[in-house]
Amino acid sequence: MWKRIEHIGIAVKDLKASNDLFKILFNTSPYKEEVVKSEHVTTSFFQLGETKIELLEGGSDSTITKFIDKKGEGIHHIAFEVEDIYAEIDRLRKEGFQVLNDPPKKGADNKLVCFVHPKTANGVLVELCQEIKK
Amino acid sequence: MWKRIEHIGIAVKDLKASNDLFKILFNTSPYKEEVVKSEHVTTSFFQLGETKIELLEGGSDSTITKFIDKKGEGIHHIAFEVEDIYAEIDRLRKEGFQVLNDPPKKGADNKLVCFVHPKTANGVLVELCQEIKK
Repeated sequence: MWKRIEHIGIAVKDLKASNDLFKILFNTSPYKEEVVKSEHVTTSFFQLGETKIELLEGGSDSTITKFIDKKGEGIHHIAFEVEDIYAEIDRLRKEGFQVLNDPPKKGADNKLVCFVHPKTANGVLVELCQEIKK
Repeated sequence: MWKRIEHIGIAVKDLKASNDLFKILFNTSPYKEEVVKSEHVTTSFFQLGETKIELLEGGSDSTITKFIDKKGEGIHHIAFEVEDIYAEIDRLRKEGFQVLNDPPKKGADNKLVCFVHPKTANGVLVELCQEIKK
């Protein structure tokens, strides 16, 4: 089951400048920053209702930097919280979607995550995520 | 005040085919379709938690068709529900954001809407919306 939109990822060139911009736009402050070493990105999070806006600045060899080089700054992906990420990966693969992380990998914010290739999802980079139980 | 993400708009070439694709992806059906004549678009809506996914197919002279010609299918805009759209338009203009609809215009789904130009919002086409009170 797909429960909600957990976050929307936005690729930015300069996290500090973009934090300032979205702080004014949303009229609220980011509630945390987090470095995700495995992805070579630094992130910050704004909360809007039940969804987060995640700003992503990439290091030189990150997918975020490659995305910006190709398409410019902007919306990078949508992450959906699912109830059972393993079952969803299995179901989507059988339906012909190209799942990029099987098994799911550890992402930011204490989550298991799996991306679905945009070429099989109408040009949208879809992320499935599920909180890691402690 | 920015309350929640009301919907995410996704530009598609063929609404019927994309309805079928997202129906399988989300494992749920769109709950309605709506033609917005003023924008030359046909839309369908999926509900995920408190946010809708809005698929948009455009007519030949629509902004959606122009967007797809330039960038391909994919995420087109993020719409945020605000408490007072007139006050937010005023605040954002004073802060230097380029607001595209002042006064706000009537959009799909019984809403007043105003877009903010992506060049002033980190490459993100931002929509403000507020339900029209009956």
